[in-house]
Amino acid sequence: MDYYEDMEVGDVTEHGSKTMTKAEIIEFATKYDPQPFHLDEEAAEETFFGGLAASGWHTAAVCMRLLVDGVLRDQASMGAAGVDELRWKRPVYPGDTLSVRVEVLEKDPDPNDPTRGRVRSKLTGLNQDGDPVISWEGLGLVARREPADAEE
Amino acid sequence: MDYYEDMEVGDVTEHGSKTMTKAEIIEFATKYDPQPFHLDEEAAEETFFGGLAASGWHTAAVCMRLLVDGVLRDQASMGAAGVDELRWKRPVYPGDTLSVRVEVLEKDPDPNDPTRGRVRSKLTGLNQDGDPVISWEGLGLVARREPADAEE
Repeated sequence: MDYYEDMEVGDVTEHGSKTMTKAEIIEFATKYDPQPFHLDEEAAEETFFGGLAASGWHTAAVCMRLLVDGVLRDQASMGAAGVDELRWKRPVYPGDTLSVRVEVLEKDPDPNDPTRGRVRSKLTGLNQDGDPVISWEGLGLVARREPADAEE
Repeated sequence: MDYYEDMEVGDVTEHGSKTMTKAEIIEFATKYDPQPFHLDEEAAEETFFGGLAASGWHTAAVCMRLLVDGVLRDQASMGAAGVDELRWKRPVYPGDTLSVRVEVLEKDPDPNDPTRGRVRSKLTGLNQDGDPVISWEGLGLVARREPADAEE
């Protein structure tokens, strides 16, 4: 299990992969983002996407799954406060295969909780051509192996 | 249909609602965020959530659905570039009923595309007590009714 103490600023790791299917794109969009360009191939052809494309929230959710499987399962994660600068950079189409790159940007002890630290990481979702399709900066909370000293 | 010209900075609207079920929380988490506190009631009791809680990405997706039904269906939306400052403010538990409040923060013509404008809106997801559970600033792109003049 990786704790706060084990994380190093500048660490970069890659994890994957997941191929997007037309059925999953339509299923997610039907539940959570029922706009024509996420639901229907013909309607999507007339739009700026030029064809059926995944909801950006679906792309985010798939990248989260790759992050859980690749990183969080082996980390003493205590969740996240949020994400900054989430950007959808390219459409994701059926058949695209996604992977994620994770870079540790910053870490500091949580001033309000000696049992954990705060870790800012940049996640980039890449397609099979290595082109970024999404990115965000995650504000993770990670348990410490040893509680911080009172004077830290 | 609402176009870029119809949106006013300061406009605030509320839309909802959706009640979260245990089955949907577990189904989403199984696919996209399989961490113990989103999957299993007993395991979740031991964690900082104190009980089974929705994935933050599930909460975001449900709020997106309320935004589509309440706002985007009647808007000449051309998607979004991303979101800033997404924050998970409170856990969402089975039985919680969510609604969204949307405020238009800023709008300006897209300097690169005379057919559309950029609209920054704050979305806040609220539970049945009116307490915020999530918020973000969305960077929407909205079609203009009339293309911008060349000199604008």
